[in-house]
Amino acid sequence: MENLHLDKHISQRFDSDLEALKSQVLVMGGLVERQIINALTALETADSIIACNVIEVEDDIDMHEVKLDEQCTMVLACRQPAASDLRMVLTVIKMIRDLERMGDEAQKIAKMAIELSDSGAAPGGYDEVRHMGALVQDMVHSVLDAFARFDVDQALQVAKADKKVDREYASAMREIVTYMMEDPRCITRVMKIIWALRALERIGDHSRNIAEHIIFLVRGLDVRHTSVNEIEKKLNRI
Amino acid sequence: MENLHLDKHISQRFDSDLEALKSQVLVMGGLVERQIINALTALETADSIIACNVIEVEDDIDMHEVKLDEQCTMVLACRQPAASDLRMVLTVIKMIRDLERMGDEAQKIAKMAIELSDSGAAPGGYDEVRHMGALVQDMVHSVLDAFARFDVDQALQVAKADKKVDREYASAMREIVTYMMEDPRCITRVMKIIWALRALERIGDHSRNIAEHIIFLVRGLDVRHTSVNEIEKKLNRI
Repeated sequence: MENLHLDKHISQRFDSDLEALKSQVLVMGGLVERQIINALTALETADSIIACNVIEVEDDIDMHEVKLDEQCTMVLACRQPAASDLRMVLTVIKMIRDLERMGDEAQKIAKMAIELSDSGAAPGGYDEVRHMGALVQDMVHSVLDAFARFDVDQALQVAKADKKVDREYASAMREIVTYMMEDPRCITRVMKIIWALRALERIGDHSRNIAEHIIFLVRGLDVRHTSVNEIEKKLNRI
Repeated sequence: MENLHLDKHISQRFDSDLEALKSQVLVMGGLVERQIINALTALETADSIIACNVIEVEDDIDMHEVKLDEQCTMVLACRQPAASDLRMVLTVIKMIRDLERMGDEAQKIAKMAIELSDSGAAPGGYDEVRHMGALVQDMVHSVLDAFARFDVDQALQVAKADKKVDREYASAMREIVTYMMEDPRCITRVMKIIWALRALERIGDHSRNIAEHIIFLVRGLDVRHTSVNEIEKKLNRI
């Protein structure tokens, strides 16, 4: 496990500002994690009550983003952080945006759940959703854990897992197009499953983004737009 | 037109840092704008050479993002900006992320163009792409202009235009599902058009995000997760 020691400051208030940012990001992350789980349950069980609840909670996530962003601006303006402290604040600014988008994607899945509970289930695709859902839930849980522990190795594992999700997504999509061809009357319903799968694939992308932010935070390396192999090489070079 | 006067600094170097950030964002924006136009041309004319070029240029956009982000971190660390200067740097950090995503979406459209030039054209949906493409191109051009002039009114118009794009998207999707039902053999090809339309809808969303960043920059108001009517009220209240 990597250890990032945020600089110790003469002002204890500054330390507690940074600690507060971190713990609030983890609270927001936990909320997003539950939203994804609930949205997937709503889709699988065609439960529109759970789905409506996901849609309501989405506002809370938005509020978390706005509040945390404001706090980051305050810390930048009042504390003028440098080095690893500055990276911490910048990481939080970027990370909450990814978390908020993940919440949006969970909400999209919930909306598909409501539409499918109205129109009747799709003729297939649920296995694919379940399978991709499990992979993506693992990624989200793991990347939040990596942030909590400033763990670069674990962040790297998340970036690797995203490739697997992308492969699963491509194979699920091929499978699902055949359902549409076999029974064109169910195209509209199958499209809902496609949007849910797409949302999961996007949640995977955002988890990978967060993994990249964590690597930037701990090692000061910008690894965006870099393949997993190259990231590994860059990390080993230091 | 609104005027934001970035604070004048004892250090002329600081002024030129901020000016450089602004002009480089506009260069990056111009690049993204051209990518969208070229990707749409490639799709419409089934021209895989133009499409391949879009995919290549995408790397340049990624490099712009990384470089600008680095410059923002430097300004924060060395100049410790406050008030409107700090908002300027934070706006650039957020805006370049939206621009980079818009570039990604243009690249997705280019990929669909290549696949359709290989498999033969889709049986329909091109009118919808053309129509939504024109709306979205206007939004992108307009929001970059609003940033260049720090023009809140124009930013508000872009936020309004996004609602229109969302409506067009919903209506295009309904239309396109009927093509699939009428001829299930062409489902795979029609799906490419659906992904292109989805990419355009996302580019519209990112333009709206940028419009919101501009309002934050000029007026210091966070208007994310707020309806256009509420934004208008908030702006008039000041």
